[in-house]
Amino acid sequence: MVVVGGGFGGLLAARGLKGAPVDVTLVDRQNFHLFQPLAYQVATGALSAAEIASPLRRVLRKQRNTRVILGEVVGFDLERREVRLADLPNGSAGETLPYDILVVAGGSAYSYFGHDDWAEYAPELKSLEGALDLRARILLAFEAAEVEQDPAVRDAWLTFVVVGGGPTGVEMAGQIGELARDTLHRDFRSMDTRGARVLLVEATGRLLATFPESLSRRAVTSLSSLGVETLLDTTVVGVDATGVDTRAADGTTSRIPTRTAVWAAGVNASPLARLLADAAGIAIDRAGRIVVEPDLTIAGHPEVFAIGDMAAVGDQHLPGVAPVAMQEGRHVAKSIRDGRREPFHYRDKGNLATIGHSRAVADIKGLHFSGFPAWALWLGLHLFYLIGFENRLLVLTRWTFSWLTRGRGARVIHR
Amino acid sequence: MVVVGGGFGGLLAARGLKGAPVDVTLVDRQNFHLFQPLAYQVATGALSAAEIASPLRRVLRKQRNTRVILGEVVGFDLERREVRLADLPNGSAGETLPYDILVVAGGSAYSYFGHDDWAEYAPELKSLEGALDLRARILLAFEAAEVEQDPAVRDAWLTFVVVGGGPTGVEMAGQIGELARDTLHRDFRSMDTRGARVLLVEATGRLLATFPESLSRRAVTSLSSLGVETLLDTTVVGVDATGVDTRAADGTTSRIPTRTAVWAAGVNASPLARLLADAAGIAIDRAGRIVVEPDLTIAGHPEVFAIGDMAAVGDQHLPGVAPVAMQEGRHVAKSIRDGRREPFHYRDKGNLATIGHSRAVADIKGLHFSGFPAWALWLGLHLFYLIGFENRLLVLTRWTFSWLTRGRGARVIHR
Repeated sequence: MVVVGGGFGGLLAARGLKGAPVDVTLVDRQNFHLFQPLAYQVATGALSAAEIASPLRRVLRKQRNTRVILGEVVGFDLERREVRLADLPNGSAGETLPYDILVVAGGSAYSYFGHDDWAEYAPELKSLEGALDLRARILLAFEAAEVEQDPAVRDAWLTFVVVGGGPTGVEMAGQIGELARDTLHRDFRSMDTRGARVLLVEATGRLLATFPESLSRRAVTSLSSLGVETLLDTTVVGVDATGVDTRAADGTTSRIPTRTAVWAAGVNASPLARLLADAAGIAIDRAGRIVVEPDLTIAGHPEVFAIGDMAAVGDQHLPGVAPVAMQEGRHVAKSIRDGRREPFHYRDKGNLATIGHSRAVADIKGLHFSGFPAWALWLGLHLFYLIGFENRLLVLTRWTFSWLTRGRGARVIHR
Repeated sequence: MVVVGGGFGGLLAARGLKGAPVDVTLVDRQNFHLFQPLAYQVATGALSAAEIASPLRRVLRKQRNTRVILGEVVGFDLERREVRLADLPNGSAGETLPYDILVVAGGSAYSYFGHDDWAEYAPELKSLEGALDLRARILLAFEAAEVEQDPAVRDAWLTFVVVGGGPTGVEMAGQIGELARDTLHRDFRSMDTRGARVLLVEATGRLLATFPESLSRRAVTSLSSLGVETLLDTTVVGVDATGVDTRAADGTTSRIPTRTAVWAAGVNASPLARLLADAAGIAIDRAGRIVVEPDLTIAGHPEVFAIGDMAAVGDQHLPGVAPVAMQEGRHVAKSIRDGRREPFHYRDKGNLATIGHSRAVADIKGLHFSGFPAWALWLGLHLFYLIGFENRLLVLTRWTFSWLTRGRGARVIHR
């Protein structure tokens, strides 16, 4: 069988088949599993890239029935039961992989709502490259402000706009706020980085739409204590090299002069969703996700599963988060082991978002809490789910130092 | 005063002036001090980039008389006593820095002996970018070999050529050998990575020219036990996408089919050496180094120091290694503090090179030893000189895991 994608869904599916009487081939475009929930910490210099990236070969080393292939899927042939791979970046010809069972878990990417030209000025952080690019931009903005003579331009360098008030946007805005207030202010001589403005722009009436409303309000307060201004009911209508244009609910437009914008709004399924849907002759939904049966297979093909962010399970409205993909991956592995197809039911264990040092919000089975307990829970869970004991220890070391010193050790600009 | 360069020389000069009644401005093109002696471990996936890179602002945070500027020096005006900076990469205009005292410590880069076109096929690892590029190439070579059907092409993917038998070349060859033999062989399914060929090509008659001859021979034996073949008296006469051409001492030429070459031969001083020499009207030597007076100042300018890899101290033949740059940096700081100019004398504490797991050679004050004791000494010294307690702990954690598991946790391909 072939598993496409080494993210949470694909990796859990492959791992769930350890020791099973099947030969598994896992294909990914990258040679590592990215712990994407911590990508924003790479982007703000709290962690180094390799600390949240586990080589897939290493993760699956002891699983003798599984091989890993570095490759990009460019086509599915459901009749001949084959997956076609692109050539490797270094010129080596791509393979065609035959399968008896296929699991596609291609994930998602940010969507710029048809304005792909904004991507140049407001990068996203779904990928490791995106996170490293953002880190370089954010740190360079402070460097530029330090030497800038024109006060207006300096203010623009010291203004950061985060677009999108979901968990990633909230985390990112909070971290930039902390970076400016706690970490960097001792490091610069000719300006006070605490004067930096961080704006979080959200199109709807509240942050963290999937959380209870009281926690959404709490997030605004917590962000505010880090100096982050939240602009609700505000739509971004333009992004360019020197600013972000917004429109408020009453229709008034305004321009925020900034040199650094971060995109954390609007998610689209991986293009693999459409590729697979076209091959099977079935529908995709508005977010580009392939619509799968309740058992996570695609209609007419009980041998083909689609899971994770790129799949919409019937009319269940599942969020595009790691726990959904992980549970779906485990469900697929169990279905294959048992030789049965049973409906998937998501067990919602709760929702967590962190804002900064000792600041977080949690909604666990109806229990709402915030502050230090939520933050401690967030910390523990992320360490637990991070893959590999070595990375856990490294991240724990980094976090301990950050906590004690308010520092961020991985503030390295490289591209 | 202005210090140009945040490497070993510049950083030690700046740190040596902590609390002194001078205002120090440290300029570097990058925002971090790179612990260059461990760059080859980033290139072979043993360490993550930020673990050997310390943000200069952080290192110098508590030194209130010192400010750090991110900038690239493009000119010296010794009459007006000014350093001119290029514009920042993000478009911000560069400054002109006035100085009363100037310390230039621009370091060095690899030289391709006039064949700059080889750089594309055989990258160097003086820089963090070079190390990350090499890491991606080396790991991609194994990935390509795993899916390659043509045996000749697969063999070329599994052949690695390291050019230059100095400490960096020896370390790099040893690490690629270990990667193939110890780390990766459990991770691939369709080939045995232990069949990889690693060749170390050296133009002279022995490796590690600055070491005693017995240790040079010892290095060859140690490398051989890791599967590395050493080709002595062999000159590289061509490098392209599919191979390396060599010429032996007897004039016979041959071609080694390979897709991955590493350049660790021939060092040239930073272009800043020529820039400074031209501004002062003095000479540079064959390696592009500016020739300085015994007190490390440049002739006719007791207010201008040049140190580290880019400076040649009269007719002392000092190697281009970190201890020389560090001692020179300290000497300059002392000269400035004391308001005196005294001759610099290098205290050679010895020479160390590591080859692999429990394999190293050491020449400490005439005492020659190798194997585990040399390796343990190497480990301890590198941890000691690594900057920042946090990085020491992170690197120690990585090394402990590597030592226990023969693994390499930072095997992440990203560009």
